[in-house]
Amino acid sequence: MHPTITSQQVLSGTIFDVDRASWVLASGDQIERFVVRHPGAVTIVPVLDDGSVVLVRNARIAVGARLWELPAGKLEPDEPPVETARRELSEETGYTCAQLIPLGTFYTSPGFCDEVMHCFLAEGLRAGVAHPEPGEDLIVETVTPEELWSMVDDGTLIDGKTMAALLLWQRRLARLPRPGARV
Amino acid sequence: MHPTITSQQVLSGTIFDVDRASWVLASGDQIERFVVRHPGAVTIVPVLDDGSVVLVRNARIAVGARLWELPAGKLEPDEPPVETARRELSEETGYTCAQLIPLGTFYTSPGFCDEVMHCFLAEGLRAGVAHPEPGEDLIVETVTPEELWSMVDDGTLIDGKTMAALLLWQRRLARLPRPGARV
Repeated sequence: MHPTITSQQVLSGTIFDVDRASWVLASGDQIERFVVRHPGAVTIVPVLDDGSVVLVRNARIAVGARLWELPAGKLEPDEPPVETARRELSEETGYTCAQLIPLGTFYTSPGFCDEVMHCFLAEGLRAGVAHPEPGEDLIVETVTPEELWSMVDDGTLIDGKTMAALLLWQRRLARLPRPGARV
Repeated sequence: MHPTITSQQVLSGTIFDVDRASWVLASGDQIERFVVRHPGAVTIVPVLDDGSVVLVRNARIAVGARLWELPAGKLEPDEPPVETARRELSEETGYTCAQLIPLGTFYTSPGFCDEVMHCFLAEGLRAGVAHPEPGEDLIVETVTPEELWSMVDDGTLIDGKTMAALLLWQRRLARLPRPGARV
């Protein structure tokens, strides 16, 4: 890794800032790029007792479409990711949960952005009333696992963080002992 | 969906531009946000005849770390994604391939960015010499499927587009008839 030699903010927004960063290659050439600075976010896989999964259909101005996604949201300053997960699950879907199990973390777009996504499995769900933030436009829908995988396969579900979180959830399921299996 | 009423470029960079977009909610309130405009990109799952997968360890200035990733790169103007995939696979890893099979597409960060990622499975690989672009700092490494999944499970592989593309690849494998299975 070549260390960043300078990083200067050029834009400050509600969701992200932009820095101008520069660094020197082994060749001696200096490279300069804009980098998106993001506070980090969480996404939650909310699984009901019958195995169904709670999704949101999120109106996304950036892409001009309403996307099927897992509930998600960005970290508030100094907020532990597990608390963000509990808050966003309740705000976006109305559900509270008995437990939040860490599934892993990933970078959403490390080519130009430092956003870290923390993923949680939410179990022991209890329905409540959603209370989205101003500017959010969400429709909550519950799907069976069969419907969920069919939406991935036919290109209905095209949100990358949702797909990465589903992979982490599936990997966790693959590692769990099967009910009744000898240990 | 509430249509965007204005969108004006405020920053123009090598990898992305930033627009200031505004729109009106059902409540009548006007919202204004910065949106990252990206030309779109491809990522490739290169599978060798023995089942191993070719990865790159990519020095990512935006996150200050060298990440394990699938080969990837952004679209040039008017370049069909399948050609970008062929070009980036060769540039980043040296491998050429007999066929590129579309696995699906997704948005990497639709909350603030319009980047679309096109995923391809590359088969029939033939080794050659990598020729990365100036500013790229890549190490090519081949891993077995067992090593790959272990890297996902233990948090060694934390690139979101790689994880989403691996999900699409696994979904494709799950849909294929098993060798010797009756159709």
